[in-house]
Amino acid sequence: MSPDTDSVASAIAYAEYRNKLDGLNAIPARLGKLNKETTFVLDYFKMEEPVLLEDGAGKKFILVDHNEKEQSVKNRDSGEILEIIDHHRVSDLTTPNPIFMRFEPVGCTATIIYKMFAGRGMEISKQTAGLMLSAIVSDTLIFKSPTCTREDKMAAQALSKIAGVDDLQTFAGEMLKAGSDLQGYSAEELLNLDRKKFRVAGIEAYISQIQTLDYDDIMRLKDEFIKEMDLFLEKTKAGLAVLMITDLNKNSSMLLFTGRRSEFASRVFNAKIDADHAYLEGVVSRKAQIIPRLMAFHQGE
Amino acid sequence: MSPDTDSVASAIAYAEYRNKLDGLNAIPARLGKLNKETTFVLDYFKMEEPVLLEDGAGKKFILVDHNEKEQSVKNRDSGEILEIIDHHRVSDLTTPNPIFMRFEPVGCTATIIYKMFAGRGMEISKQTAGLMLSAIVSDTLIFKSPTCTREDKMAAQALSKIAGVDDLQTFAGEMLKAGSDLQGYSAEELLNLDRKKFRVAGIEAYISQIQTLDYDDIMRLKDEFIKEMDLFLEKTKAGLAVLMITDLNKNSSMLLFTGRRSEFASRVFNAKIDADHAYLEGVVSRKAQIIPRLMAFHQGE
Repeated sequence: MSPDTDSVASAIAYAEYRNKLDGLNAIPARLGKLNKETTFVLDYFKMEEPVLLEDGAGKKFILVDHNEKEQSVKNRDSGEILEIIDHHRVSDLTTPNPIFMRFEPVGCTATIIYKMFAGRGMEISKQTAGLMLSAIVSDTLIFKSPTCTREDKMAAQALSKIAGVDDLQTFAGEMLKAGSDLQGYSAEELLNLDRKKFRVAGIEAYISQIQTLDYDDIMRLKDEFIKEMDLFLEKTKAGLAVLMITDLNKNSSMLLFTGRRSEFASRVFNAKIDADHAYLEGVVSRKAQIIPRLMAFHQGE
Repeated sequence: MSPDTDSVASAIAYAEYRNKLDGLNAIPARLGKLNKETTFVLDYFKMEEPVLLEDGAGKKFILVDHNEKEQSVKNRDSGEILEIIDHHRVSDLTTPNPIFMRFEPVGCTATIIYKMFAGRGMEISKQTAGLMLSAIVSDTLIFKSPTCTREDKMAAQALSKIAGVDDLQTFAGEMLKAGSDLQGYSAEELLNLDRKKFRVAGIEAYISQIQTLDYDDIMRLKDEFIKEMDLFLEKTKAGLAVLMITDLNKNSSMLLFTGRRSEFASRVFNAKIDADHAYLEGVVSRKAQIIPRLMAFHQGE
């Protein structure tokens, strides 16, 4: 619903893979608005944005970079899932038939797709390689995230050669800067940029993430964020809203949380009683460092 | 819970794969008693049977050839799933963390594992290759099942060379004969040999399968089967019990069903009102031809 660079790059790359492999005629699609980082990357490699898919009814699709129904296309159950390529946890997944699925606990879905191309000795076009490289750099925060594996680094190295990106550090810096340019966004828009819905401990939770090089600037909006999160919960009737503000300079995150069930977040992250925030040193990954902690706390209760 | 030749061969083969790949020190395990076919195969290739795993609490495991909780080790949620290699539909699957999973809609899990060995140019031991070959021959009914793919045939061809099985037809015939030797089993034991639990259309259903070269012999036990299935449902409180008796000579199956919700099976398989059976021509696969039909009927209702 909130595509990031990996979702978009993986959709384009996997469509290229399947179309080259067996002429499937796959069309890359997205489920929501592109963020500034992805727009920068598509522009840099002169690629068009994928089509917007608003309803899955009657369609056949391959899911890349997600599998949870809450994050997927509307009316997914009225369509057909052909395949899934992902690097997230599996959540409440059921298919009527056996299907092809490849899940690997690597930093980036594009890394899995790179391995599929490489495994069959298939060529990746220069532009697509550029997108895949961008996805890896983005998802792993230039290889610094705890989710980054040796395979992500190897894939990025191979892809940078194909894409002709000689100075990876400079390119990655420009890309992350474009992505963390949050000028002109309202608090509501910032919360929407990368918001995912989860079900943990029987609670419906929305967890947004913002990555920034200007942490203090963003934190000035704290009261507005809480206000917007409360409004959002009124509309959705969900129990918990969390905003994870990741400071790319310090590789740490501030969590803001609110909602009927905010005491749950407060306990999981050892915040003070009645606090609406917790600062977590060394925490940058929602997938690897926030979701498992919420899940583990639930199981331990 | 009711391991077949593919479950056992895949456990042994994948343990060999992971131990050779990165020294994981994986131990092949089974969750229940071996059937006669698998015992024949292990004996033929002079391999030991995997250890019996009775409780998953505190253990780390790789699931092969299954993923549904109902068919998995006791206290699975108190252990940790490291990986899943399977060719069945996904059912109600959730993991707290991202994990490695490889699902392919091929006829046999051993085929997927063969591809993993081949993809890395790794050697398969002669005995393990024999088990994997047996698994493919068994799951695809010597390549005649509708679940059989080109990849299963290619894997079987390569594996028969490694295993030194020159006359595949003769070997396969002996193996299926050993497996379909149902002499000495009571009706209750026959129902237990390959019984799987499913949840379809909100119904808890147990579906057993027997494959036989002596269809008429087995059908003489019809009344006893129905009686035992009723007793089993009293104990388990499930809503539906089905027995699929597959005639290997005619590649067709008789379904017997009973239980509170037997009218559901009766409608799905177009049996007469109040009938306790339906004969299905050309139907041999529970996974590919029975389960999807139950699921599709539910969605179409």
